Amino acid sequence: MTWTLAARTAKMNPSALREILKLTERPGIISLAGGLPSPKTFPIPAFADACARVLRDDGPAALQYAASEGYGPLREAVAALLPWAVDPAQVLITTGSQQGLDLAAKVLIDPGSRVLVETPTYLGALQAFTPMEPQPVAVASDDEGVLPDDLAAKAAPGARFVYLLPNFQNPTGRTLSEARRVAVLAAAARTGLPILEDNPYGELWFDQPPPLPLAARNPEGAIYLGSFSKILAPGLRLGFLVAPKAVYPKLLQAKQAVDLHTPSFTQRVAYEVIKGDFLERHVPTIRALYKQQRDAMLAALTHKMAGLDVRWNVPAGGMFLWLRMPEGIDTARLLPQAVERGVAFVPGAPFYSGAADARTMRLSFVTASVSEIDRAVAALAGVVREALAAV
Amino acid sequence: MTWTLAARTAKMNPSALREILKLTERPGIISLAGGLPSPKTFPIPAFADACARVLRDDGPAALQYAASEGYGPLREAVAALLPWAVDPAQVLITTGSQQGLDLAAKVLIDPGSRVLVETPTYLGALQAFTPMEPQPVAVASDDEGVLPDDLAAKAAPGARFVYLLPNFQNPTGRTLSEARRVAVLAAAARTGLPILEDNPYGELWFDQPPPLPLAARNPEGAIYLGSFSKILAPGLRLGFLVAPKAVYPKLLQAKQAVDLHTPSFTQRVAYEVIKGDFLERHVPTIRALYKQQRDAMLAALTHKMAGLDVRWNVPAGGMFLWLRMPEGIDTARLLPQAVERGVAFVPGAPFYSGAADARTMRLSFVTASVSEIDRAVAALAGVVREALAAV
Repeated sequence: MTWTLAARTAKMNPSALREILKLTERPGIISLAGGLPSPKTFPIPAFADACARVLRDDGPAALQYAASEGYGPLREAVAALLPWAVDPAQVLITTGSQQGLDLAAKVLIDPGSRVLVETPTYLGALQAFTPMEPQPVAVASDDEGVLPDDLAAKAAPGARFVYLLPNFQNPTGRTLSEARRVAVLAAAARTGLPILEDNPYGELWFDQPPPLPLAARNPEGAIYLGSFSKILAPGLRLGFLVAPKAVYPKLLQAKQAVDLHTPSFTQRVAYEVIKGDFLERHVPTIRALYKQQRDAMLAALTHKMAGLDVRWNVPAGGMFLWLRMPEGIDTARLLPQAVERGVAFVPGAPFYSGAADARTMRLSFVTASVSEIDRAVAALAGVVREALAAV
Repeated sequence: MTWTLAARTAKMNPSALREILKLTERPGIISLAGGLPSPKTFPIPAFADACARVLRDDGPAALQYAASEGYGPLREAVAALLPWAVDPAQVLITTGSQQGLDLAAKVLIDPGSRVLVETPTYLGALQAFTPMEPQPVAVASDDEGVLPDDLAAKAAPGARFVYLLPNFQNPTGRTLSEARRVAVLAAAARTGLPILEDNPYGELWFDQPPPLPLAARNPEGAIYLGSFSKILAPGLRLGFLVAPKAVYPKLLQAKQAVDLHTPSFTQRVAYEVIKGDFLERHVPTIRALYKQQRDAMLAALTHKMAGLDVRWNVPAGGMFLWLRMPEGIDTARLLPQAVERGVAFVPGAPFYSGAADARTMRLSFVTASVSEIDRAVAALAGVVREALAAV
């Protein structure tokens, strides 16, 4: 038989990250690489109760085909959770927020369409966009996010959208500041540039909530993606999008063609768990745990990296911290040595759609425990010292 | 903001079927329209037990991110269920078999690629293919499936694959006969034409199992799609595909980009339910129920349509029966009158990718009960008589 692959598959390559994560699954490795929420935060008894209730009270509907838009009460709950007036009719439940990226790509990207992304940006978004063959354009960014002037310059002519992850970004952990949000929105409005706003981590703030989402300030100009992965559990694959009327119907048709609908059962279980004030009680415990682990990582870095020209940021929430190594260190080449010493991280290069900064790396502070973080950072510092000695 | 939609969205239109199904949700309507499995067949207590066990014994892993390929034991169980030697490494768990269609389309269809389909064919497949902008080509078909000579003629040059639903097809209920399978495989081999084989209904046979799948006879030349929707419950959105090495890696990359993985939790729950001999005990009860309902529909048709030139087939399994109305009847125009009289069906026209036979309709015999089927067919016969009087 002659299997002829579609031309787009030439651009679809195994995720560098995925290959790295395989390395880190070896026994004995402390992984600061993956973006896996701490299993300690999974509300297992609440899920068990919810499963039993859903199957007892609503089993036939929970196991039947259902509307592509999603389970009505869950759409209403999502709308009620968001910090602006959202019509539940504009909410679409997705099979993880990753699916929202796939649907947006299908509906908004033609081959060669310019799509603006942060420097660096979420690798999974690049992967979701790739099959639609966009031309990704990296917008210059600093510690507060994208630079509005560069955004405006690259928007014209005809960029389809800018993909932004404003809160505790993956991979950098940085947050788009309030002033920067105002300037970004002004630049987008001036150039007619739609925004694809991804907010999987926004609830994981440590000291104060992040500024209001961009979509809240211009609901007609943005598609907003959210997720239950970081506040309930990722294994449910439950996310959602909120889209303006200009694009919702096509996103819905794309959704229907992809998987008909997100599982009826998991949608009902999640609704049963979150209805009432569950999240108000549960999410603060995740924040407290992750803050403690971030602090442990910061303390370990300060202590173990002393005297090295290693720089890092102080994320105000989320799961990740971004490091920059001294001159002469390529983190991709450092990784095998680190794995040898029992610690894994993600090199920064794959997160850049344009020129990469090979000295960067992403560390997750949520999966490993405080004592593991301490040991892992010590091992990493040792590897850096060795590498510097060899430069 | 300026939302510019991708060119492909012009071809993505609301499903005619979906709009019809909305009509049929009015209270008091007996629907023979939807392809909804009977909720009586959902093993609710088994699901309740499985959920409790999975969360008790394996909660953290069931709620965590997981491999894009799917849950190992479920992939092994799928391989073991299939009637040919399948390596679990070639099994990919999908979010419903609908997702298998989306992934295959992404990996195999370029804009303008010729994709061969049956006459008529499953509407959901056409919808899944559409965003990749194929040129669907209808292969002439009779009661035994596609005609091998027409298949061979339309395969050359360069058709990407033929999409076949060999068992108890949606919409016609027909089955590709053993002799026809042999001839279809020969035609495909002669022309180097890959096969996309969709088998959601194969287990729902009434008197004897259908012939061996095409993929079983040429595993390197076919992607095989299967589903738990009709033997467990559709609300889980659990399907799978088996693909040869020539295409598996790209299907896997496409899967990863779409939703990272199918829910870890539902995969484990399904595995807990089916491990051991559950399906051997459960599936025969579905077969018996659906056979009884098919027989009720056949009896009602014989009785109520007497004297009318209405023709129908006798499906050997599955969920659907295919009717052809007398000269002068357009089933799309008949539908509103039928809904007025309390019965709904699906007009045949949307299932044709080429010239449609407007006299056809699809009836489902699995959702409504025996007494509802009897009343619905009586009402339908009344509507046909009225329409004929007006011709």
